Amino acid sequence: MVTHTPQARPTRSTTACQGVPWHQVQIHDSGYWGMRRRVNSRVTLDIEYEQCLKTGRIDAFRLNWKEGMPNKPHQFWDSDVAKWVEAAAYDLACHPNPELEKKLEHVVNLIVSSQQPDGYINSFYCTLMPEKRLTNLMYMHELYCAGHLMEAAVAHYQATGRRHFLEAMCRYADLIDSIFGPESEGKMPGYDGHQEIELALVKLYQATGEKRYLKLAEFFVLQRGQEPNFFVEESRRRENLTPTPASLINQQAHLPILKQNTAEGHAVRAGYFFAGAADVASATGDKRLFKQLRKLWENITRKRMYLTGGIGSTAVHEKFTIDYDLPNESAYAETCATISLLFFAHRMLMAQPLAEYADVIERALYNGITSGVNLKGDRFFYANPLAASPALNHGLKGSISPVRQPWFSTSCCPPNLARLLASLGQYIYAASRETLYVHQYISSDTHLELAGQSVKLTQTTNYPWDETVTLKIHSDAARPWTLAVRWPGWCRQVQVRINGKLDRQARADSTGYIRLTRQWQAGDTVELVLAMPVERQYAHPACRMNQGKVALTRGPVVYCVEAIDAKADPFQLTLPPTAKLSAVYEPKLLGGCVAIDVHNAIRVEADKWTGDLYSTRRPSYTKTSFRAIPYALWNNRKPGNMTVWINEV
Amino acid sequence: MVTHTPQARPTRSTTACQGVPWHQVQIHDSGYWGMRRRVNSRVTLDIEYEQCLKTGRIDAFRLNWKEGMPNKPHQFWDSDVAKWVEAAAYDLACHPNPELEKKLEHVVNLIVSSQQPDGYINSFYCTLMPEKRLTNLMYMHELYCAGHLMEAAVAHYQATGRRHFLEAMCRYADLIDSIFGPESEGKMPGYDGHQEIELALVKLYQATGEKRYLKLAEFFVLQRGQEPNFFVEESRRRENLTPTPASLINQQAHLPILKQNTAEGHAVRAGYFFAGAADVASATGDKRLFKQLRKLWENITRKRMYLTGGIGSTAVHEKFTIDYDLPNESAYAETCATISLLFFAHRMLMAQPLAEYADVIERALYNGITSGVNLKGDRFFYANPLAASPALNHGLKGSISPVRQPWFSTSCCPPNLARLLASLGQYIYAASRETLYVHQYISSDTHLELAGQSVKLTQTTNYPWDETVTLKIHSDAARPWTLAVRWPGWCRQVQVRINGKLDRQARADSTGYIRLTRQWQAGDTVELVLAMPVERQYAHPACRMNQGKVALTRGPVVYCVEAIDAKADPFQLTLPPTAKLSAVYEPKLLGGCVAIDVHNAIRVEADKWTGDLYSTRRPSYTKTSFRAIPYALWNNRKPGNMTVWINEV
Repeated sequence: MVTHTPQARPTRSTTACQGVPWHQVQIHDSGYWGMRRRVNSRVTLDIEYEQCLKTGRIDAFRLNWKEGMPNKPHQFWDSDVAKWVEAAAYDLACHPNPELEKKLEHVVNLIVSSQQPDGYINSFYCTLMPEKRLTNLMYMHELYCAGHLMEAAVAHYQATGRRHFLEAMCRYADLIDSIFGPESEGKMPGYDGHQEIELALVKLYQATGEKRYLKLAEFFVLQRGQEPNFFVEESRRRENLTPTPASLINQQAHLPILKQNTAEGHAVRAGYFFAGAADVASATGDKRLFKQLRKLWENITRKRMYLTGGIGSTAVHEKFTIDYDLPNESAYAETCATISLLFFAHRMLMAQPLAEYADVIERALYNGITSGVNLKGDRFFYANPLAASPALNHGLKGSISPVRQPWFSTSCCPPNLARLLASLGQYIYAASRETLYVHQYISSDTHLELAGQSVKLTQTTNYPWDETVTLKIHSDAARPWTLAVRWPGWCRQVQVRINGKLDRQARADSTGYIRLTRQWQAGDTVELVLAMPVERQYAHPACRMNQGKVALTRGPVVYCVEAIDAKADPFQLTLPPTAKLSAVYEPKLLGGCVAIDVHNAIRVEADKWTGDLYSTRRPSYTKTSFRAIPYALWNNRKPGNMTVWINEV
Repeated sequence: MVTHTPQARPTRSTTACQGVPWHQVQIHDSGYWGMRRRVNSRVTLDIEYEQCLKTGRIDAFRLNWKEGMPNKPHQFWDSDVAKWVEAAAYDLACHPNPELEKKLEHVVNLIVSSQQPDGYINSFYCTLMPEKRLTNLMYMHELYCAGHLMEAAVAHYQATGRRHFLEAMCRYADLIDSIFGPESEGKMPGYDGHQEIELALVKLYQATGEKRYLKLAEFFVLQRGQEPNFFVEESRRRENLTPTPASLINQQAHLPILKQNTAEGHAVRAGYFFAGAADVASATGDKRLFKQLRKLWENITRKRMYLTGGIGSTAVHEKFTIDYDLPNESAYAETCATISLLFFAHRMLMAQPLAEYADVIERALYNGITSGVNLKGDRFFYANPLAASPALNHGLKGSISPVRQPWFSTSCCPPNLARLLASLGQYIYAASRETLYVHQYISSDTHLELAGQSVKLTQTTNYPWDETVTLKIHSDAARPWTLAVRWPGWCRQVQVRINGKLDRQARADSTGYIRLTRQWQAGDTVELVLAMPVERQYAHPACRMNQGKVALTRGPVVYCVEAIDAKADPFQLTLPPTAKLSAVYEPKLLGGCVAIDVHNAIRVEADKWTGDLYSTRRPSYTKTSFRAIPYALWNNRKPGNMTVWINEV
């Protein structure tokens, strides 16, 4: 399978760096990501295809469903199939697989065959109510589905070089562009209830150079929440009802983005929205919009983000609540929401290379995102709680089940995980003038042009288990260029060795990057040692649920305790400051990982309790030891209670 | 207003004691209950009437609603009105009020006027779909509404002596009896999705002597969950669908009651079900059923009950989850569920006078029930969490809001509270042969026949704030009789003084009662001093959410800390074993109550925190003092965070 460089990006961008796209990065990791991506490729993609097939999602594009048949089409379905197509396309470029390619082309052809003469594609509306198209933007996800199909088409084109799906989606985008826009141009001043098309249109613009798509994305971003409110008008038109203020907030349509100072409403929508807005701000040079996004970024990451990178703390409308409200066991922290935060972070990082953005990407990747799928690749979390009692599985709705599930009725998370893992390469490197940024530490090769020079680099590491990262240059430079390596926010000490020699001057600048400028030659090596002691983490005093508790981290990895690794229910443990914490690499544990062994801890002597539900007799305590494992790997063995935050004293 | 003794109860009962009914007890409390009942009478009943009127619940009985009019009738509405009628009837017997009486009679007449020629009463079905009557027992609450109307009719008859409502409900009961019963008799072998009619039919039987009502109640109790499963059959008939096993469990229809060994499903339904079943077991002498109820009782009170008496820990289907799963902040502990537990406890207590039943009634009354209404009587909790952050009010559905609400779309709890408070008298005393039981310590008079002798007794106390209870006898006995006073389960030491003289022999027997047998004479007094030190409570080690935490109680009252009474967020407090705890009666605080002042506690120094969301720097702590207040009285001042369980060390 051939990979294709997309067309040059014709942009008047203020972007400070440019991501090195997924197809210019070859991940050759044999550790964490190797394992996750291999399973994604070999298991998850097949399973998701089967689920899409079995539930009717794929055949819905035949547009021949009739009342009485099983699998009535649903308005979200196209997006699930689109994300699978996107994932399969990325994956095929790395792992050739004729069978998967056949499935991919079958699905793509079905989608394209469902296109209406005017360009419209939507299996739900075309089958069930063609006359109702675009009458319920607020709830029916038409443009959301369109956006995912656009992303899929771009990925399919990049992976295969075949243009028919891309062209079909351009025709659909042209239709949407002909319908939506300023009222002054006689267009519909609307936008979708679930953001997604904004960032997708920017991708389509980047892939094709068609500026109308960027302009339409900008329109969707800036029009949202303007008065008269489109959703209010639409609801009155359709049902003679006025939406509640809460429902507008849930969809981030209560105010224009420039007036939204805190992240509110449905977390996935917010993440996609802000990512799309950041794309627009970069491409158009809109400084005011960028400044506003920075404010929203700070609100999320400084007041509304779990230690794991999860966002959106309540299952009620899957939304943000208030500052510091980060309950552990009832955490929603939807897998898709954490992925959407990663998208937002990545756009911010491209606009302004600050290590804090890459830090959040890292936090999300190693914790709240990969917790979403089991090691076998066939079970998924929708919600990613930081404490859980899997015995509660009984009777709980799939999306809030504390045990991973094979699929969901609204199944956005599984294919979102698949496309993220398959396109992981794009988050590792970026280039800016004469600087090559190394944002993430993942074993990989890249080959790119840097200010006219060809640069070839190999990264080798067993990160996040190992502290050492080796970067090897395979190209001779005619002029100096800068290798900018991230000093992670969690790291107190970084050693830099260039060609074996310790660079005592190496420091991060204010952006959080260590900048090494040289006329690099083939064979040059940079070795980083990122000190990874086990750390005790405390939460802000306003995080009521974590007061008196401590969490363990090592490097970017958040740890948890599962019942199977303790002589007690993890909630009965206490971790005094005197406890001894040792990091141990366990090659056979959970696919190979570093565990934290804890000695001199304390536990309740449960067997000495009288048996009453409540008692005035204080329970007795005894010394104990236990093991903590990476949070993302929990619920892969015998189900048992789990907690990230442990009682401290 | 005249009060009427109901007809003698013609029963082959094994009941070990007989409750002294509400209309034979005059509460003259000037403390907690005086305050609560005064507000209930003067404020709550009016407000609830207005809400029922405003929302269309009352006028629904006119059966003239038409499409396009506001306030479309809802299938639960009749039950809200019925509970209000029941409450107003009880209240009027204690607090004559011509205006309230006028409203009551207006509503009662409307209800009676809506009766169909065959006896059927239901404003929803009669108005909207008369042809669909009794086709969806599983979900449409017809017999549930009928049951509440029966309870209302009995109360109305007892309070006013007027029989027309009672007779109307008998006609309806006769209709139901003609329809439901064993298939072998050509009847419908069904039962309601929401239990209630079972206990109501027993009340109707007790008020009228009509044994068919008891037999029908017994049928409903024992038929539930039998194979072939009625709800399965009904759903197939109606929609060609099979209900999920979970939906059958939610309605306690997955197994016959004799095979249900744990309390499962919707908590209010379970409480009403078990209460009705206990009534049936008592009236029919069914020992097997009673033994089964004892098993369910033990499961609930030893493994599934909050410290406050709340039951049903999750808002998801308002149900029981698993043993020891009692989350604090996401606690549902619906007000109605706690009331239903009180009903169950009361029936068990009548069947077998064990103090533990009266203890649970007490726990529920002083904590999880009266927390459901504010001191002004105009705001209500549906859920009664043991920890809360009222700032989360924003956007949360009324029923799970951590701030009391004026009404709810499904508004079962407010009128349930009203009828409970208005009929509180019935929970205080009971009689058995020659024993008068004092189950609850509430200032009141009673006058009853005890084995042919007239007994008159006055109880005076400022319980639960004060340790002393004085019982004064106002009648001369010809033969000895026994005064049995409860030794509360929470109490380590009880002093008994008879006519001023300390009775050093006074001990509780195995039932938990101190039995004092004498030929009591007018003027005799019994003084009890129930030692009420502040106690530290610990939860069972399997209660994961309370490990490392402690709660404060004094007597039957559970305490909590509200932000307004602490120099810190209550979640930032730590209560070491060395903290000093003093009980202080505060006449001006929250209507007069005992607060607990805590000295030498510890709090996080929030102002010294760096500001990061997470930090490896442990927060600093400092000494502090704070005040704890009775849990039932929280959220009556400036809204702020609250917790019952406090970090201990």
